[in-house]
Amino acid sequence: MVNRKAKGSGAERELIHKFWKCGWAAIRVAGSGSIKYPTPDIIASNNLRKIAIEVKATKGDAQYITKDQIGQMQEFCQRFGAEAWIAVRFDNRGWYFVSLEELRETTAAFVLDYDKAKAIGMTFEDVTRQMP
Amino acid sequence: MVNRKAKGSGAERELIHKFWKCGWAAIRVAGSGSIKYPTPDIIASNNLRKIAIEVKATKGDAQYITKDQIGQMQEFCQRFGAEAWIAVRFDNRGWYFVSLEELRETTAAFVLDYDKAKAIGMTFEDVTRQMP
Repeated sequence: MVNRKAKGSGAERELIHKFWKCGWAAIRVAGSGSIKYPTPDIIASNNLRKIAIEVKATKGDAQYITKDQIGQMQEFCQRFGAEAWIAVRFDNRGWYFVSLEELRETTAAFVLDYDKAKAIGMTFEDVTRQMP
Repeated sequence: MVNRKAKGSGAERELIHKFWKCGWAAIRVAGSGSIKYPTPDIIASNNLRKIAIEVKATKGDAQYITKDQIGQMQEFCQRFGAEAWIAVRFDNRGWYFVSLEELRETTAAFVLDYDKAKAIGMTFEDVTRQMP
């Protein structure tokens, strides 16, 4: 049984490998120590584009992201100067990338549904091929 | 007695705080898992400039950096699109930033001497004030 945290960092490592393999540089952000700054899970760049990514993995048909995490992504990306992306791995069904505005907002959180991801999400190849 | 690794990450955290305090975004790069990519210790940006930093701290008068670390910095910065900096904290004497070309090369490594750092190094304030 894989716990949620280990699963999350496994998904992050998988993405890191994909980026380096296609000519991008990508790093995982170290967990905060005592003081918490708003940071994404991954930062990647191909020299022209900088992208910050919140990474999730789920066996289900919907992935929830807290409003706090979305707020942190916005704050980080504005200061740093990076595109904000949510990357969700729907297990055995692949990776989908969406921008923050494409998430569905509920009273408690933001959600990405598998059907919507499939319909409007970008694949890894779409994201890394896209020109600035 | 503080070991070298703990000391290194303490120095990294100190720098991270300094960047956030002056309006920049900065992150520590997570240690590699099984597979090693060339990565710096810190990436920071104020939206206009992206800088990658190898961080060192020493009680002595000279800081050595391996040729492998310098090679990794160059490779990362070229792919990612970032300025490459070495930041050395000479304990109780402050931080000095130098570019890779300013290090002294020996047969075994690169070196930053305190006297040279003091003479030609930039302070934290110099680095973050500098315009693109």
